Amino acid sequence: MEIRKKVQLATSLPGAKPICLVGTKSQAGVENLAPFSSITHLGSNPLLIGMVTRPDTVERHTLQNILDSKAWTLNHITEEFLQAAHQCSAKYPGGVSEFEATGLTAHYEAGGFAPFVAESPVKFSLELEEVIDIKSNGTKLIVGSVQQIILPDVALEASGHLDLSGLGCLASTALDTYFSIQEIGRLPYARPE
Amino acid sequence: MEIRKKVQLATSLPGAKPICLVGTKSQAGVENLAPFSSITHLGSNPLLIGMVTRPDTVERHTLQNILDSKAWTLNHITEEFLQAAHQCSAKYPGGVSEFEATGLTAHYEAGGFAPFVAESPVKFSLELEEVIDIKSNGTKLIVGSVQQIILPDVALEASGHLDLSGLGCLASTALDTYFSIQEIGRLPYARPE
Repeated sequence: MEIRKKVQLATSLPGAKPICLVGTKSQAGVENLAPFSSITHLGSNPLLIGMVTRPDTVERHTLQNILDSKAWTLNHITEEFLQAAHQCSAKYPGGVSEFEATGLTAHYEAGGFAPFVAESPVKFSLELEEVIDIKSNGTKLIVGSVQQIILPDVALEASGHLDLSGLGCLASTALDTYFSIQEIGRLPYARPE
Repeated sequence: MEIRKKVQLATSLPGAKPICLVGTKSQAGVENLAPFSSITHLGSNPLLIGMVTRPDTVERHTLQNILDSKAWTLNHITEEFLQAAHQCSAKYPGGVSEFEATGLTAHYEAGGFAPFVAESPVKFSLELEEVIDIKSNGTKLIVGSVQQIILPDVALEASGHLDLSGLGCLASTALDTYFSIQEIGRLPYARPE
């Protein structure tokens, strides 16, 4: 199979994944945004999130900033600012902030180092716990603990369930294909009988 | 925050993730199915997929079978067999096959050890490459290379793009909330200008 076709299939095959902008800041103060899709839940108590990075891509600023500051944010993308969010995947030179380049708005919480994306309805900050080498192909799993969560009160149900589709959060494959999501049901805890 | 509420929020927070049935078989020949959502693309060449497992849950049969046989399948879930797929999360005793318990149909390819789910429109087999301990919380990242892909010819576009929403593939959070996905667009490769 031709390599570009193979890559496209490979990135679609595992299915629709979350799509968030990762917000970081360099030691020189340059703010950075990069779209990430390889985000997963690792544990609930403590609340740990993992994401996979390749050292040789646009994500290298993100990785370096996280290693330097131990801090980053994850900001869910919605259709309202999808074009600007997608544009953050462009390979800007090191001194250029994706906030300035795309018009997205940085938001800071007191005491926080990494910028949030003001336009995002669901955003949270993380602190670095662990960077794990994946020997099979030289990628890295970055593990962080969630520090602060910002979301509209109405989106959080009494059960702790978060209304992701009501908030307009998207999913993605291959960082080029975007999906809206529609909740079709919640099923009860399954028992053998 | 109350612990059950915290878990629910924690599992929703990273966003809508893929939802697949993992098919395995024990050395004694007992077929096993378990729903997994923490599935991510690690690389395209070779085509590597990662998934996260906790040793202390229903997933333990899955993990043991993978460690023993080095083989498993991933089978995308659609709304047509969602109830049966969800039922596979029940904690059946060791000698019970989720295929028998739920009525789903095992499918084997020549030379393959792990069963596919015949009802699934997109399914692929993997071979174990690496098991990585995540020290932060005792979970494991299982890394596999894709061996064989089974999908309808019409779903694979010339570009390699896979029509996941057309195939009815779902997404999930918390292994209890299910989403249909609708492709809203494919955006061109982003450049700085």
